[in-house]
Amino acid sequence: FNDPILRRNVSLYMGGKLLGLALVLVIMLLVIPKAVHAATGATVQTPEINAINTVWTLIAAFLVFCMQVGFVMLEAGFARSREAVNILVEGIADTCICGILFWAWGFAFMFEPGTPWIGTTGFFLNGLGPTYLTTGVPVLAYWVFQFAFADTASTITSGAMVGRCGFWGDIIYSIGVTGFIYPIVGHWAWGPDGWLAVMGFKDFAGSTVVHSIGGAISLAGAIALGPRLGRVFKRDGGGPPPAHDLIIGAVGGLILWFGWYGFNPGSTLSALDIQGIGRVSFNTTMAACSGGLVALFISYARSKKWDLGLTVNGFLGGLVAITCPCYWVSPTGAFFIGIVAAVVVVFGLDLLEYLRIDDPIGAVPVHLLAGIWGTLSLGLFATGQFGAPTPTGADTSSVITGLFYGGGVSLLGTQVVGSLSVVIATLVISGLMMFVLKKIGVLRISEKHEIEGMDIAEHGASAYPEYALAGVLPSLIGH
Amino acid sequence: FNDPILRRNVSLYMGGKLLGLALVLVIMLLVIPKAVHAATGATVQTPEINAINTVWTLIAAFLVFCMQVGFVMLEAGFARSREAVNILVEGIADTCICGILFWAWGFAFMFEPGTPWIGTTGFFLNGLGPTYLTTGVPVLAYWVFQFAFADTASTITSGAMVGRCGFWGDIIYSIGVTGFIYPIVGHWAWGPDGWLAVMGFKDFAGSTVVHSIGGAISLAGAIALGPRLGRVFKRDGGGPPPAHDLIIGAVGGLILWFGWYGFNPGSTLSALDIQGIGRVSFNTTMAACSGGLVALFISYARSKKWDLGLTVNGFLGGLVAITCPCYWVSPTGAFFIGIVAAVVVVFGLDLLEYLRIDDPIGAVPVHLLAGIWGTLSLGLFATGQFGAPTPTGADTSSVITGLFYGGGVSLLGTQVVGSLSVVIATLVISGLMMFVLKKIGVLRISEKHEIEGMDIAEHGASAYPEYALAGVLPSLIGH
Amino acid sequence: FNDPILRRNVSLYMGGKLLGLALVLVIMLLVIPKAVHAATGATVQTPEINAINTVWTLIAAFLVFCMQVGFVMLEAGFARSREAVNILVEGIADTCICGILFWAWGFAFMFEPGTPWIGTTGFFLNGLGPTYLTTGVPVLAYWVFQFAFADTASTITSGAMVGRCGFWGDIIYSIGVTGFIYPIVGHWAWGPDGWLAVMGFKDFAGSTVVHSIGGAISLAGAIALGPRLGRVFKRDGGGPPPAHDLIIGAVGGLILWFGWYGFNPGSTLSALDIQGIGRVSFNTTMAACSGGLVALFISYARSKKWDLGLTVNGFLGGLVAITCPCYWVSPTGAFFIGIVAAVVVVFGLDLLEYLRIDDPIGAVPVHLLAGIWGTLSLGLFATGQFGAPTPTGADTSSVITGLFYGGGVSLLGTQVVGSLSVVIATLVISGLMMFVLKKIGVLRISEKHEIEGMDIAEHGASAYPEYALAGVLPSLIGH
Repeated sequence: FNDPILRRNVSLYMGGKLLGLALVLVIMLLVIPKAVHAATGATVQTPEINAINTVWTLIAAFLVFCMQVGFVMLEAGFARSREAVNILVEGIADTCICGILFWAWGFAFMFEPGTPWIGTTGFFLNGLGPTYLTTGVPVLAYWVFQFAFADTASTITSGAMVGRCGFWGDIIYSIGVTGFIYPIVGHWAWGPDGWLAVMGFKDFAGSTVVHSIGGAISLAGAIALGPRLGRVFKRDGGGPPPAHDLIIGAVGGLILWFGWYGFNPGSTLSALDIQGIGRVSFNTTMAACSGGLVALFISYARSKKWDLGLTVNGFLGGLVAITCPCYWVSPTGAFFIGIVAAVVVVFGLDLLEYLRIDDPIGAVPVHLLAGIWGTLSLGLFATGQFGAPTPTGADTSSVITGLFYGGGVSLLGTQVVGSLSVVIATLVISGLMMFVLKKIGVLRISEKHEIEGMDIAEHGASAYPEYALAGVLPSLIGH
Repeated sequence: FNDPILRRNVSLYMGGKLLGLALVLVIMLLVIPKAVHAATGATVQTPEINAINTVWTLIAAFLVFCMQVGFVMLEAGFARSREAVNILVEGIADTCICGILFWAWGFAFMFEPGTPWIGTTGFFLNGLGPTYLTTGVPVLAYWVFQFAFADTASTITSGAMVGRCGFWGDIIYSIGVTGFIYPIVGHWAWGPDGWLAVMGFKDFAGSTVVHSIGGAISLAGAIALGPRLGRVFKRDGGGPPPAHDLIIGAVGGLILWFGWYGFNPGSTLSALDIQGIGRVSFNTTMAACSGGLVALFISYARSKKWDLGLTVNGFLGGLVAITCPCYWVSPTGAFFIGIVAAVVVVFGLDLLEYLRIDDPIGAVPVHLLAGIWGTLSLGLFATGQFGAPTPTGADTSSVITGLFYGGGVSLLGTQVVGSLSVVIATLVISGLMMFVLKKIGVLRISEKHEIEGMDIAEHGASAYPEYALAGVLPSLIGH
Repeated sequence: FNDPILRRNVSLYMGGKLLGLALVLVIMLLVIPKAVHAATGATVQTPEINAINTVWTLIAAFLVFCMQVGFVMLEAGFARSREAVNILVEGIADTCICGILFWAWGFAFMFEPGTPWIGTTGFFLNGLGPTYLTTGVPVLAYWVFQFAFADTASTITSGAMVGRCGFWGDIIYSIGVTGFIYPIVGHWAWGPDGWLAVMGFKDFAGSTVVHSIGGAISLAGAIALGPRLGRVFKRDGGGPPPAHDLIIGAVGGLILWFGWYGFNPGSTLSALDIQGIGRVSFNTTMAACSGGLVALFISYARSKKWDLGLTVNGFLGGLVAITCPCYWVSPTGAFFIGIVAAVVVVFGLDLLEYLRIDDPIGAVPVHLLAGIWGTLSLGLFATGQFGAPTPTGADTSSVITGLFYGGGVSLLGTQVVGSLSVVIATLVISGLMMFVLKKIGVLRISEKHEIEGMDIAEHGASAYPEYALAGVLPSLIGH
């Protein structure tokens, strides 16, 4: 795949396919019948129960939205000052694009019935019943919750692409992610008739659906873009440029942890399930704590320095990993899942550095690799006490059980299939999209603009025009 | 009004009037009978329903309070570093003053019965029943929600006055705003017997009551103060000085968006109204997304730069505009309301620059102009499906319908009357207040102090004493 | 106690005692029978009521967790840039350690039955019933709430120790605080059979349990450490070094205020108690407002400058003070409690400066002194209308009444005993711990590292590597 002509032809061919797919989907929007779960989605809960569950879902949605604050601070803080404005514009533009597309067709593709591969009803939320399926939660409230999730996936995609992606490229790939890749691949696992869902694949709050998809796109983008100018890797005698504002970056990490309390516990869509929301909140906390502490000690063991960046990525890795299994594992399980996640993140960072892939904030190890680990971990640690959540509590009539709790390898196998399918499909599709964007020349900014600084060149502003910088050139050569 | 003697005499005369009014009101506090809605405000909801609604109202209140974090970050980030400390002290002092005055008489003026012009009972919350009217929400909980709103209005007022308003002036006008202008004018629209409320004027969460009032006071203040030293306008070959910390500023904008999920959805005062809170949350999201995206593309169309400041002001404009109509419009309505709001904000910024009014963070376009647009938009986009919210859901027996949905111009006319009445009254009263403050010499800091830097002169501290600045003089001449 | 040999021997002796205590406790973990409140903690509430109360408790827990964001920003902003990274690593490490220890034995020591001095069941949360005592809130949800509290106490401890405490010291004293001092001393007041609880000592949300314990440990640490190199006190012609980023610091203070709306109102553990959560939310607001405003005016009266740092510490002092009495006092009581708290904080700051104790962010005045005042204030201001909170509302059969409301000095006396016992015990135990750590040489970083800058020396990173600093040496000699 290193032959430029082959690359160009494949890119053009697949890019054409992608555009064709988009066209077909738009036509579907116009001709396909409206959704019908208005009739079938009867709920038997009382108004009080539906109100409690809706309050829970909406407040969780608001906390997940707050993760946008965390993401932009984390990314901007860990980047160089010359590319910080770009990160903010990108994060906000993503959010805006996501809101509009997820209304127009994203929600329909992902959460409405249709085929095992894609939802085909409910475009612009037309024709839907008052509440989503049997949840008792209004469709518009549920949409806000799922919009915030889609927005998270969308923002993750930018993580490994910081500092050299042109803004037209940003806009186009954001449309691809929020409008097509995330909702279509997500339908497989979370759609009412998705093929992975039907097969028994479980991903409670999205280690795979949100984090692995976002992280895989990020990886495809980083490979397509290549490293920033002047980025020298460790094996070549360099290393990642230092975070330009560690305080903002680490505060962003803590705000993400805060927002995760909406992400995971809110995914019950039910507060009547009091044991479920308590358990998920506990497990989320525990995996973050063990992940953070392990990364901290690994950093000290390696360098005799207590590294802030690694510690933050450690607890984020724990949070990503516990996102899939948090409903079904015990406190002890959460503790060990966090520990392994931190190890995965640390060695993932090393691996990317070795492979000379420039991932400025560690999006690939944290979201893709820890997401895969978390998805698989359910097959090991599911306690066999709980099935799927319902509006009033866990369904205990069909529980899931992992290998360590006597359930054999069946669940683990399903998790492997689900994780691999999603990751490979996402890598292939997003890789094609990125290379098409590269071919048409909108993916990477020009060398002239990159030397000038992308904030100035693309956004006409420096993040901190009044501060004197200690020197611009060194930051261009990797330090 | 340019004759200084006339200006002085008018100012003094009206200032005396204002003080006299204050005196009368204080006397009222002492002699007027206690509120009686304890007897009439019987509620029929169950304890569970009241609890759910109170939880919803209080958590919304906390999110609205969090908007203070957003406002001070937005304002400080978009200001110059030399005036950032002032913004923080001002925001905190406002909050503290607001809390005390809104307890003493602000809440009584605004939310208790009395006359169509002002509430006359319940000073210091004395004599009130356990819950507010028929909401089932405890008076003290409802107070916290409304305090957070009043505080928002109060903080908005400082927006266009950044960088040259003396602190004694700040304190006095804050008392005027929180103690008199906001609660009295607000009573017209939100008091149980306010004349605009009785007339059918609708302002769900305060495009007019909070944002237009705050923005109009801000405009009066900016005109009374005049521009900052060295501020050169575009038509004179200059432009606004650059934001000193775009990251902090844009993060503040995102935190405001987060807090808006308390502001709008919480204004149902009911979570039993599950369709209402879902709809409001959705519409709030959609208007922000379309507003942000349109402002982003306008900035690019104009300058070939993707401008961060304009994008933030775009989504804020969308949020301000949807605040009034969010309960009564459809997703499509919200989408278009946000689009127009962004256009209003962008051209409002141009207009102020043309008029040589120095509004350092764009408070007038975002809060006053988008607030007016949002208030009027209800008269166009109200779908005719919903009436007023009640503790258990929308009142569908008396719905409101806008022009585009076959309701004719009746609602639009009422909205025009309401918006104009509030804006003109606020401009006149606050204009007089500002000019009185100017006359007595407390509004603007001295030229010497402004050149020294107002943080040093008024607060004895620089925001970042350890950072080397790239140069102070250029920021004084506006760039 | 100035004789070094005596100091060393006492330290070693008491250090040995402490380690012995730890050993005994670990053994207890293994041999003592499981908790039995599964059987006795029957609840009679409906599933709906339990769900509402659990939602309230969990969302409050999330807000309290968000205070971590506030604390690290407050501390880092008010510190010098050279020690900011250390504060972030410390805050995150504390959180992680706290989560693991509070799961392993902290929760059991503090909240489970056992003896009047320490809980002895429920290690690793094993053997506990589904809900905590009679609250109807699941144990795991209640744990998350109490973890966030413990984490707050843990982070407060670092406040006065900023800038010179070695990281091994940090880790070890964090284990001492979260694993032993906070849960064991906390059990006295909040354990189901704690001796202070049984005696009638009241501390609604922890002016004593969280803030006085945290502040007292902080004081012990500051004394053991001694001042930072180059720190010259006012009586020697110097003063505290200026905050390196007042914006970040003050924003952190506002985020703490936001999080306090989880801390205090959430401590009802009940949202059915609608009057209680309304009252607590109101009182929390009022004390913060009066405290902030008084501190602002004191700063102006003293220096003719409106001081930002003092204003922030003023409202924080009000918040700390109202934390104990917020459930039982009236709006007027809250107003005065905040005023006195601000005075306590301001003069506490002076006192520490006079005593040549280097407390970089004012942790001792804000948390220890205002915490003591708040605890005592209940004995003055309790209105005699309310008893303890229950899952469905206040118990009005056994109310508590303060001196000013005709209740005599009985309650005040109990509060004095409770506050003094906790503060003295904590000072003694933590003082010994700190001196042991000092003896073994892990408490303070070396002079060489302190001059180099502790962020570089301990963490291998500067917070802002790209910014030019105005000069490093001056910050070492106190300015």
